[in-house]
Amino acid sequence: MKPDEFEPISEETINRVAEQFNITDIEHASIGEVLLMSSELERITGIPFVRMDQGSPGLPPCAIGLQAEKEALDKGVASLYPAADGIPPLKENLSEFIKAFINIDIPARCCIPTAGSVAGSFGSFIAATQCSEGKDKVLFIDPGFPIQRSQLKILGIEYLQFDIYPYRGEKLKDKIESYLMRGDIAAIIYSNPNNPAWICLEESELETIGKLATRYGTIVLEDLAYFGMDFRRNLGRPWQPPYVPTVARYTDNYIIMLSSSKIFSYAGQRMAAACVSERLFDSRFPALAARYGGNGHFGSTFVASILYMITSGVTHTTQYGYAAMLKAAVEGKFDFVEETSEYARRANRMKKIFTDNGFHIVYDYDVTREVGDGFFFTIGYEGLTGGQLLKELLGYGVSSISLDTTGSLENGVRACSSRMREELYPVLEKRMRKFNEEHKRLKKENK
Amino acid sequence: MKPDEFEPISEETINRVAEQFNITDIEHASIGEVLLMSSELERITGIPFVRMDQGSPGLPPCAIGLQAEKEALDKGVASLYPAADGIPPLKENLSEFIKAFINIDIPARCCIPTAGSVAGSFGSFIAATQCSEGKDKVLFIDPGFPIQRSQLKILGIEYLQFDIYPYRGEKLKDKIESYLMRGDIAAIIYSNPNNPAWICLEESELETIGKLATRYGTIVLEDLAYFGMDFRRNLGRPWQPPYVPTVARYTDNYIIMLSSSKIFSYAGQRMAAACVSERLFDSRFPALAARYGGNGHFGSTFVASILYMITSGVTHTTQYGYAAMLKAAVEGKFDFVEETSEYARRANRMKKIFTDNGFHIVYDYDVTREVGDGFFFTIGYEGLTGGQLLKELLGYGVSSISLDTTGSLENGVRACSSRMREELYPVLEKRMRKFNEEHKRLKKENK
Repeated sequence: MKPDEFEPISEETINRVAEQFNITDIEHASIGEVLLMSSELERITGIPFVRMDQGSPGLPPCAIGLQAEKEALDKGVASLYPAADGIPPLKENLSEFIKAFINIDIPARCCIPTAGSVAGSFGSFIAATQCSEGKDKVLFIDPGFPIQRSQLKILGIEYLQFDIYPYRGEKLKDKIESYLMRGDIAAIIYSNPNNPAWICLEESELETIGKLATRYGTIVLEDLAYFGMDFRRNLGRPWQPPYVPTVARYTDNYIIMLSSSKIFSYAGQRMAAACVSERLFDSRFPALAARYGGNGHFGSTFVASILYMITSGVTHTTQYGYAAMLKAAVEGKFDFVEETSEYARRANRMKKIFTDNGFHIVYDYDVTREVGDGFFFTIGYEGLTGGQLLKELLGYGVSSISLDTTGSLENGVRACSSRMREELYPVLEKRMRKFNEEHKRLKKENK
Repeated sequence: MKPDEFEPISEETINRVAEQFNITDIEHASIGEVLLMSSELERITGIPFVRMDQGSPGLPPCAIGLQAEKEALDKGVASLYPAADGIPPLKENLSEFIKAFINIDIPARCCIPTAGSVAGSFGSFIAATQCSEGKDKVLFIDPGFPIQRSQLKILGIEYLQFDIYPYRGEKLKDKIESYLMRGDIAAIIYSNPNNPAWICLEESELETIGKLATRYGTIVLEDLAYFGMDFRRNLGRPWQPPYVPTVARYTDNYIIMLSSSKIFSYAGQRMAAACVSERLFDSRFPALAARYGGNGHFGSTFVASILYMITSGVTHTTQYGYAAMLKAAVEGKFDFVEETSEYARRANRMKKIFTDNGFHIVYDYDVTREVGDGFFFTIGYEGLTGGQLLKELLGYGVSSISLDTTGSLENGVRACSSRMREELYPVLEKRMRKFNEEHKRLKKENK
């Protein structure tokens, strides 16, 4: 084999590894399963993998957080149970951060730290679906984060979903309303920017969602894990427009989920927040009172009867770390948008390699603009389903997840740019050239 | 008022404060509610409270953990998602710790860190009650930890319970079997030493529970949060008898819950572990396969489909801290039993003050021995229910929780010794003398 050649891993080897981990369906493998397979394939073949699977930060953790955590360790707070609703400085800085970057008012008392956004959505699903008898289902604006769907499986909560791809812009209203009219939708969930497609809802679309949420009494769970990372414009200047888009401008029936994982590269510490609109926080629901006692106050139930019962607060010293990072961002001392824009540069180069070699971007446009470069992008290859593409790419030492595990009806895979390294670009280029040579015939057959 | 006199807080003030926090039933107030009331009463009256309510450590956090956390912060792991089933050194040290102090074998792969034991029991309740259709209820051997009952309320899981007080020793078998015979009990839960009563199950009782669990296919959830803290004998010498008593010697159908909160005074960091027996870990349940896909493997489902979906792992740097503390304990470099025996000294002095002034110990005996001194104790006062006593004591600047919120049928309150301070003993003494003077008539009326 010539040094610039690449021999794909055989299908047999891939199947054998899948079997070893009890993975019965490679094409629809979960992130965790892809992770296991690619690590093992890397180990047994010696082929370095281009890891586009898990959305794990590829930057060092924010040093301001680390320093504040150390100081908190020295203060001895590790022995003391943290307050159920979070330490006051964190609550206040969350409220300030939201004001500075979103220009929305949420009082500190309504900002609740959670053990990652995953715990925030888990608790929110519980609270939202228990507010009113018979109003107990969740609507996903897909594609979406597979873990959120899995959370409902644990809880036995039913959900409905649709792929937004053909319903962008004006078509969104009728589509969403067709679900809300049923009367049993307790919550709508989406992420913006979107995981996995990196599409961004535009103001008109957020307005549609917000107004419908108010009309039908549905709580919007807005996942802003990739806060400010729509790099097509600079959303990273505190107290200045443009502000981060949000449904909160159009309804007062929402929970915004923030996270330290991506913007501060802090995924390991499991620190995020669920920020509840003041109106919702102070609403009372007889069904909550009936289940948990008390007077059915949404905010108290969410904090004391739900979140506290799952983890009894979140890591005390890390709360100080998160508080310090938010403060630095609000004061303009830590530009998290500039820091994370490295992911856009990586995505841009990766997307070029794929599109130069026969691939196309699947979710390519928002209503009015081309999708930007960021943490995720989606690629397809004519003639291959998402599952087939995932499996074929594994043979070329490239790991991804299939879009059909995210509620998408499109053929393609999600690629994450975060873990790309300089030395891997030529490797990826060489492998994708080979991939295209081997798969071109698929395109011809499709003609 | 003479300097050594104490004027109780009026009932009117107490009622007003309760109202302020929407607390409708002081006598049955939750820990969180007592906490709020006593802080506020302290603030407005200026009377320093003897805080016997929350079981929060009253010792500094273990320095070995703090140091290891700092080193992990320096290594940069804060940016990386922790492995879903925990970092390998923590898993291995949990397995070693269990071997050294309990003399039981649980492989590292079956030891899973959780965000406090509360997340461990929450996930365990879910997994246990979903293993077999129709076998979906939980049996509490009470008195117990109110939070665990509240967790079932969130999940809509039904439970049964009984107060063990009249069923110690040989009477336990028939009592438990009367529940298990129903066929719908998925799990039995208890803590040992017991929160709130500090009673300890004896070997014969653990044997009864274990054998019945095996016979009826019921999973035992053994909460060892107060590990080794039965100070009547020294359980703190690694690799040497006496070993910590456990049901694991009598069944292979169990999950042991450990915690760093009490033994390492690490409650703020939310770090614990659920250690699953190897046999249970590798069991397969068709109902789990039906709900979550895959092959129904208990361990994988518990980790990847349940715990991971709730918090996506637990704080990365704190896992290193916990690993280091366990290692130090196993190597005999940190004697957590000696450290925490301070609580026994505090409890001993407090119990004497109460019993010298007309109170009695409610849960006073195990099968063969008097209950020891430790983290909790229970006190009653003739003529008063637990709720009445809780409220009366609040008037004397002493906070506690009523036993009837813990599944107990006895009249009394739970007192925690952890936050007692040297200067408060004479204060407590003075106030309880006054209490007894004012309440003696109750005893006479009862005669």
